[in-house]
Amino acid sequence: MRTLNVDLGARSYPIYIGTGLLRADLIAPHIPGRHVLIVTNDSIAPLYLERAQAMLSGFDTASLVLPDGERHKTLETVSRIYDVLLQRRMDRQTTLIALGGGVIGDMVGFAAATYQRGVHFIQIPTTLLAQVDSSVGGKTGVNHPLGKNMIGAFYQPRAVLADMDTLTTLPPRELRAGLAEVIKYGLIMDAEFLDWLEGHMPQLLAMEHDALAVAVERSCRNKAAVVGCDEREAGERALLNLGHTFGHAIETATGYESWLHGEAVAAGMHMAAYMSQELGWLSAAEVERVRQLLLAAELPVRPPAIAPERFRELMAVDKKALAGRLRLVLLKALGRAVVTAEFDDAALTRTLQHFASAG
Amino acid sequence: MRTLNVDLGARSYPIYIGTGLLRADLIAPHIPGRHVLIVTNDSIAPLYLERAQAMLSGFDTASLVLPDGERHKTLETVSRIYDVLLQRRMDRQTTLIALGGGVIGDMVGFAAATYQRGVHFIQIPTTLLAQVDSSVGGKTGVNHPLGKNMIGAFYQPRAVLADMDTLTTLPPRELRAGLAEVIKYGLIMDAEFLDWLEGHMPQLLAMEHDALAVAVERSCRNKAAVVGCDEREAGERALLNLGHTFGHAIETATGYESWLHGEAVAAGMHMAAYMSQELGWLSAAEVERVRQLLLAAELPVRPPAIAPERFRELMAVDKKALAGRLRLVLLKALGRAVVTAEFDDAALTRTLQHFASAG
Repeated sequence: MRTLNVDLGARSYPIYIGTGLLRADLIAPHIPGRHVLIVTNDSIAPLYLERAQAMLSGFDTASLVLPDGERHKTLETVSRIYDVLLQRRMDRQTTLIALGGGVIGDMVGFAAATYQRGVHFIQIPTTLLAQVDSSVGGKTGVNHPLGKNMIGAFYQPRAVLADMDTLTTLPPRELRAGLAEVIKYGLIMDAEFLDWLEGHMPQLLAMEHDALAVAVERSCRNKAAVVGCDEREAGERALLNLGHTFGHAIETATGYESWLHGEAVAAGMHMAAYMSQELGWLSAAEVERVRQLLLAAELPVRPPAIAPERFRELMAVDKKALAGRLRLVLLKALGRAVVTAEFDDAALTRTLQHFASAG
Repeated sequence: MRTLNVDLGARSYPIYIGTGLLRADLIAPHIPGRHVLIVTNDSIAPLYLERAQAMLSGFDTASLVLPDGERHKTLETVSRIYDVLLQRRMDRQTTLIALGGGVIGDMVGFAAATYQRGVHFIQIPTTLLAQVDSSVGGKTGVNHPLGKNMIGAFYQPRAVLADMDTLTTLPPRELRAGLAEVIKYGLIMDAEFLDWLEGHMPQLLAMEHDALAVAVERSCRNKAAVVGCDEREAGERALLNLGHTFGHAIETATGYESWLHGEAVAAGMHMAAYMSQELGWLSAAEVERVRQLLLAAELPVRPPAIAPERFRELMAVDKKALAGRLRLVLLKALGRAVVTAEFDDAALTRTLQHFASAG
């Protein structure tokens, strides 16, 4: 087992990475009270809920099974968590446990941040995406019909258990979506990791535990370094959104259903790389290297057909926008991203046209 | 104008107390961006919205008028604030302004805490209750059908404008409800202020600006001292809840409608004083002094008819409960409160029976 400490002063917490982690001695020290509520979804419950309950048999434990899917990531679904907490009179010393992917993690984190103005929570991410991304950084929240993740809070877990065993039941398409975020860390800040990924994609796609654990730890370490400098996303943290402004536009246009988040980010990263080339920052060969790595991970590299004007509209709702001005994460080099509003707008136009027309 | 600084490190902010405060030069330095959304209710809008808009004419300002009343303090109403923010594409540099009483302040603060994971907000409390209580301490949130203020966040405003002019239109019943919280500060921690209140109740009921400003400043100063020590209510801050556990039970039993919050707190403080006498901490004369001061402020000193068993049930949902054990704020002396779970339960039984039977 590897242990990575996320250093946030009084809100620091450990991430445990390895196999066989769903055991009482690991989690119990992070539960301060008697009450525990496990929240999961109907895809994960048949696979891991019983094991999680067994691990928590020393506590007064309840469970709630929510419907699976990003379209349920709403205030209404979070209200179901509040209902159970109140019906069972769970107090401020309650610990909420998020057992599932990023959607469960985001909603349970938000419920923990807001129930009685804040109770404890622990993440047990069961997807690669959640293990490398959602479990570090304290972002919690839900979607609004007019925009993704528009309602939320910054709130840190007490601990994260990233168990490679839970990835064995992950559908291959979701594994690949998670690899998009892994590749992201290489692109924005870790050229050496990018080289490693190019050499180990077959092992990762084959779900070899050792390779996965390396990828999860390296991604979390990179993210923790960024989050440690900028917990509330005032500046540097926005780098983590490479591909996300383009990607969120894709997800909003397609109703959060047909594209997985990681797939949208993959296409978005390729678009960001292309735009960086349009700005003269990357060479055509470098953009091709990005494209090849995404294709090796069997990820999409193009958005669906969306007219450039509509694409711009969808991008304008992005949280990074400042005073109405769009800011984008772009690549100065492979392994070095910047966040900037200072770009030639024509390069964005050409990028959107390129991807709208070449179908 | 008096200025009181609430000292919370990076989250410190000023409270301005006086008359004629709705002016651009006072508020503008606390608004970092271009976008402002004023949120108020349909009772306050006809009185002060135009003046608030005029004060903010230098900004890109929108307004939202919500229905008045505690029963609208729900997630659904907060969603209407999100809707306007998103429809107008208001970004992270937006400032929300709460123009109204405690209900508006709590909801707008919660919307500010959770919109895009946190935007700025400013309080302009227009009731005595909100001026002395809701505008200090950063508690924001909404009610749930199973309990009051069960969903929320700790979130600080950038500034508070407590303008005595806005109290002149306050219905006398609401002024009296606000005096309950003022009296509370005397009872829990400021015996000298208690003496002052006994001498100045006629001036306060007559809404004399000078007396009101003294009462607001002294109350806020006391509260700021407590909150400064314990921002997230781990310990000492619970003292501010004198009368509130009894009071919340009254409000829940009566559906948050027939009793004003301050009225329920007044009856609750008398019950807490009575129970403190049952525990041998206060003399009968001291409890009578509490009762007389509440009566001088024309406040209720008894709960409605609620059976003791039902009253206990309603009290059990209180957020101060730890590991299922009820904690209460009680008086060791006039001017000295304690929060404790260590009390003879029979004293609570006798208190509930006394107030249930004597009608």
